Amino acid sequence: MAVTSDIDVLVSEVGPRDGLQSIQSIMPTAAKKAWIAAEAAAGVREIEVCSFVPAKLLPQMADADEIVRFARTIPGLTVLALVPNLRGAENAIAAGAHKIALPLSASETHSKANLRKSHAEVIEDVRRIAEVVRAIPADRRPGFEGNVATAFGCTLEGAVAADKVVELAAAMLAAGVDEVGLSDTTGYANPAQLRQLIRRVKAEIGADKLSGVHLHNTRGLGLANALAALEEGVTTLDSSLGGLGGCPYAPGASGNIVTEDLVFMLDAMGLRTGIDIEKLLAVRKILRDALPGDDLYGFTPDAGLPKGYGAGGWGVTQAA
Amino acid sequence: MAVTSDIDVLVSEVGPRDGLQSIQSIMPTAAKKAWIAAEAAAGVREIEVCSFVPAKLLPQMADADEIVRFARTIPGLTVLALVPNLRGAENAIAAGAHKIALPLSASETHSKANLRKSHAEVIEDVRRIAEVVRAIPADRRPGFEGNVATAFGCTLEGAVAADKVVELAAAMLAAGVDEVGLSDTTGYANPAQLRQLIRRVKAEIGADKLSGVHLHNTRGLGLANALAALEEGVTTLDSSLGGLGGCPYAPGASGNIVTEDLVFMLDAMGLRTGIDIEKLLAVRKILRDALPGDDLYGFTPDAGLPKGYGAGGWGVTQAA
Repeated sequence: MAVTSDIDVLVSEVGPRDGLQSIQSIMPTAAKKAWIAAEAAAGVREIEVCSFVPAKLLPQMADADEIVRFARTIPGLTVLALVPNLRGAENAIAAGAHKIALPLSASETHSKANLRKSHAEVIEDVRRIAEVVRAIPADRRPGFEGNVATAFGCTLEGAVAADKVVELAAAMLAAGVDEVGLSDTTGYANPAQLRQLIRRVKAEIGADKLSGVHLHNTRGLGLANALAALEEGVTTLDSSLGGLGGCPYAPGASGNIVTEDLVFMLDAMGLRTGIDIEKLLAVRKILRDALPGDDLYGFTPDAGLPKGYGAGGWGVTQAA
Repeated sequence: MAVTSDIDVLVSEVGPRDGLQSIQSIMPTAAKKAWIAAEAAAGVREIEVCSFVPAKLLPQMADADEIVRFARTIPGLTVLALVPNLRGAENAIAAGAHKIALPLSASETHSKANLRKSHAEVIEDVRRIAEVVRAIPADRRPGFEGNVATAFGCTLEGAVAADKVVELAAAMLAAGVDEVGLSDTTGYANPAQLRQLIRRVKAEIGADKLSGVHLHNTRGLGLANALAALEEGVTTLDSSLGGLGGCPYAPGASGNIVTEDLVFMLDAMGLRTGIDIEKLLAVRKILRDALPGDDLYGFTPDAGLPKGYGAGGWGVTQAA
């Protein structure tokens, strides 16, 4: 997703999908709507609002259709839905998602364990979904994004070959996605590896076809990796409010990078996100109230903003 | 402190001083010795082992003299001691510290609140200590480092002017320190600000006179800031095992950046630290046993190393 001219970085919130599908609690539909609306009001411009998977498998996502229809009514918000297969894609498109995203795990072991599909089978799914997407008139055709998951290593296979990631990114594009993103599903990435892989993927598919990166903070390197990605020209970063979707490691370990901390970093650096950090921090209350039994993560929310904080290069412009 | 030819980055452990002085518990002397010895055995080459302050003020540091004498017996270890004033410096030198470090808060409000001294008074202390240091024969003369604290902002004053930091760094050098470091005492720094200040300080005092940076993780930006500092050519980074010395914000919020996470990042990036990450992780047990009531932080210790992890550019060389 390209950033528009008035922002430097697009923060793509994934909590309502990635966060909520990772926890046991089922957030009430009204709370999901309040969350999405409040983040959009804080200036978040893209939200992955749900996953179109059977409710039997993921009861947390049973209201996917209603959530997409609601989110679409919010002006200026790009509504993204994850789809695991053709059926999911058809449902997401029918509900009106602006963009659909399909994951493909670079680790075939992981792909078979999670989706019960080989690489070739997932690529075939991409082809069939792309046909459906292309048949839609251009003025209402959704975007179609592929994501290479476990791109930086896999908890089952260990190291993942960069060659394989590059090959799969190219294969997804050839099969019909508009753009490809890279996901550090396991929190294995380090800044040097991330830089190298971003460069290789860009060289293979073209810089404008890399949609963004999805980083985890499992080993505490999430924001360092985000910084490295920014320096490589990546302008779309996924994150999750409250770090929701944390892995079971405690304390403070979370899966996704925390939206609040990411936005604080970007904002303090003088990078425009379009997001009001104070309004964003206030959205946590919706999560805390709707998920009283779940941990929320994030350092900035606990520590608070610096005394006298002002956005736009804080400590740089003020101090200069 | 310059790195030697066999390492790329010097990780300077500050836990026995900065960590232990920040918590209520008093670690037994034997445990301190075991900690210092175990970290040195894991390959850590510089440890700030204590602060020479009156035991009445900081009973946690009452055994400073004994700790320095012990640490000096460990081959290859640089023994660093914090000194708040001339008296402390004399005691640290008498005990045999290889290096003494004196902090000067860029926020004069903070300086007066903590040390009850104005900037001019601290600079006068530097001058008197430098005289004592220079009177020692060169073959046993300790290093003398100044640290500009609250260099990136202050919880009392808010933004701190970069001009002031640059001016104080130059003033400390003029008054006789060998090198000057920058400390983000409050966890206010962001990567853009850090880059800018490092450049300005280097331009003013010379690149070889910037000893390193001391970063906090209060808002989760610690490792991103460390990465930015590395990219600016800084080769000495302070950190604390287990993030000891954490501020009261919970969960997961810590003051100092966590040695384990920092070393994992550097090691995974292929930067040589001389430290064996597995041995380093094992040192946590000493802290856990000796400080049963205190929280330890760190993501990598909880998550564990990646499957099949190998140092030296993990995921880069393996995957290429």
